[in-house]
Amino acid sequence: MEQLRPLDTLNEARGKNVIVELKNNKQLVGKLKAFDIHVNTVLEDGEEKVDGEVKRKLGTIFIRGDMVVFISPA
Amino acid sequence: MEQLRPLDTLNEARGKNVIVELKNNKQLVGKLKAFDIHVNTVLEDGEEKVDGEVKRKLGTIFIRGDMVVFISPA
Amino acid sequence: MEQLRPLDTLNEARGKNVIVELKNNKQLVGKLKAFDIHVNTVLEDGEEKVDGEVKRKLGTIFIRGDMVVFISPA
Amino acid sequence: MEQLRPLDTLNEARGKNVIVELKNNKQLVGKLKAFDIHVNTVLEDGEEKVDGEVKRKLGTIFIRGDMVVFISPA
Amino acid sequence: MEQLRPLDTLNEARGKNVIVELKNNKQLVGKLKAFDIHVNTVLEDGEEKVDGEVKRKLGTIFIRGDMVVFISPA
Amino acid sequence: MEQLRPLDTLNEARGKNVIVELKNNKQLVGKLKAFDIHVNTVLEDGEEKVDGEVKRKLGTIFIRGDMVVFISPA
Amino acid sequence: MEQLRPLDTLNEARGKNVIVELKNNKQLVGKLKAFDIHVNTVLEDGEEKVDGEVKRKLGTIFIRGDMVVFISPA
Repeated sequence: MEQLRPLDTLNEARGKNVIVELKNNKQLVGKLKAFDIHVNTVLEDGEEKVDGEVKRKLGTIFIRGDMVVFISPA
Repeated sequence: MEQLRPLDTLNEARGKNVIVELKNNKQLVGKLKAFDIHVNTVLEDGEEKVDGEVKRKLGTIFIRGDMVVFISPA
Repeated sequence: MEQLRPLDTLNEARGKNVIVELKNNKQLVGKLKAFDIHVNTVLEDGEEKVDGEVKRKLGTIFIRGDMVVFISPA
Repeated sequence: MEQLRPLDTLNEARGKNVIVELKNNKQLVGKLKAFDIHVNTVLEDGEEKVDGEVKRKLGTIFIRGDMVVFISPA
Repeated sequence: MEQLRPLDTLNEARGKNVIVELKNNKQLVGKLKAFDIHVNTVLEDGEEKVDGEVKRKLGTIFIRGDMVVFISPA
Repeated sequence: MEQLRPLDTLNEARGKNVIVELKNNKQLVGKLKAFDIHVNTVLEDGEEKVDGEVKRKLGTIFIRGDMVVFISPA
Repeated sequence: MEQLRPLDTLNEARGKNVIVELKNNKQLVGKLKAFDIHVNTVLEDGEEKVDGEVKRKLGTIFIRGDMVVFISPA
């Protein structure tokens, strides 16, 4: 387990629903479709939430990596 | 699907209308004309929206990548 | 069209009047004279606008790229 | 001891409970599962705390390194 | 003219009085003595201005490039 | 003395008590155990202080370098 | 004079008293002992000033370069 790298964890989450917490305090929730080493991330069937409440349905979302605080299972 | 990269998703959106959410809380909406690996992005027939309302018509817009929060279909 | 890069769009705007929106919420308006890959940008006959109103005439302006939000035709 | 590098300290904390203090003033607490040279970090059985109070149970959390202020034993 | 680079413009301003607008809303005014590709800049006989008013005489000033918003003739 | 590099100064402080001032206005105080060229820093027997008052005892602290304002003897 | 680089100016200030203005609006004043290309800087006999008033005597201070706004003679 010691040699596990952080991006391996993201890899295991592909195809699953995740919460992406952003630096502007919003959350994007959707199915994790793709990511890269900059943590640029793509969600499918994505929604924007503010304080846990759905604010907008967005569909496919390309998120710039440097806006990400954390990603966890939805 | 596992090997899809985030920028491939942007590539599929070329020529389509997208919302570009910015770090200053504004949205730019227009037809996705070009982007690069820094997420520098060009929209055509672009408009600036604040809280969903059109504030300015801007035409062709070159957006610096580090201002982008996310890009999704309009 | 698919292979157009964002900086090509800036190149087409050389010699034309542009608005440079900055991260500090100000706009610089002038003739686009030069730019580089960092989006460092030079305007001629430049003016500073705040909320659309001319605040200062500045002449030639060297703008540091990382302050740029977007550039569009004036 | 003089040649110890900061990431060696993180390495000794693998599998142990840690507090990850974030730039947005929140704390994530959980078992340190993985990290890399950017300080991208993965916690297991993670919880979000604000001012020391549990706010959300999050499970596995991928944290982007540039959001980290410090990491210490929980 | 099309091949002019932004730093060429700064080069033409060497030895002349310039305004350096900073990200913290202050202006430094003085004679442009030196700069490099990071836009690290040195002014001679420099003064700090806030809202156009002289606040401090500083003499030679080394300015870190990433604090610069723009540089224009004084 | 002219050729002394900044990190040499940190090296002389190894094993001594230091104050690490952070960008979020907090101070971490402890024994300097390790640092690297990014100024990632490890303190032992560390405490968090706010406005000079001990707020939390933290033990071993890994501090991400880009949060550091300055480091000086405690 | 045209080929002078900004760091040459800092080099001339070695051993002299300087003001280091920081992004958090504080000033550190002391004898310039060392600096590097990132503008990481070491002061000796350093003091922290806020609005020109001495707040703390700090002794030797290692300052992370990316916090520096400008450096000028004290």
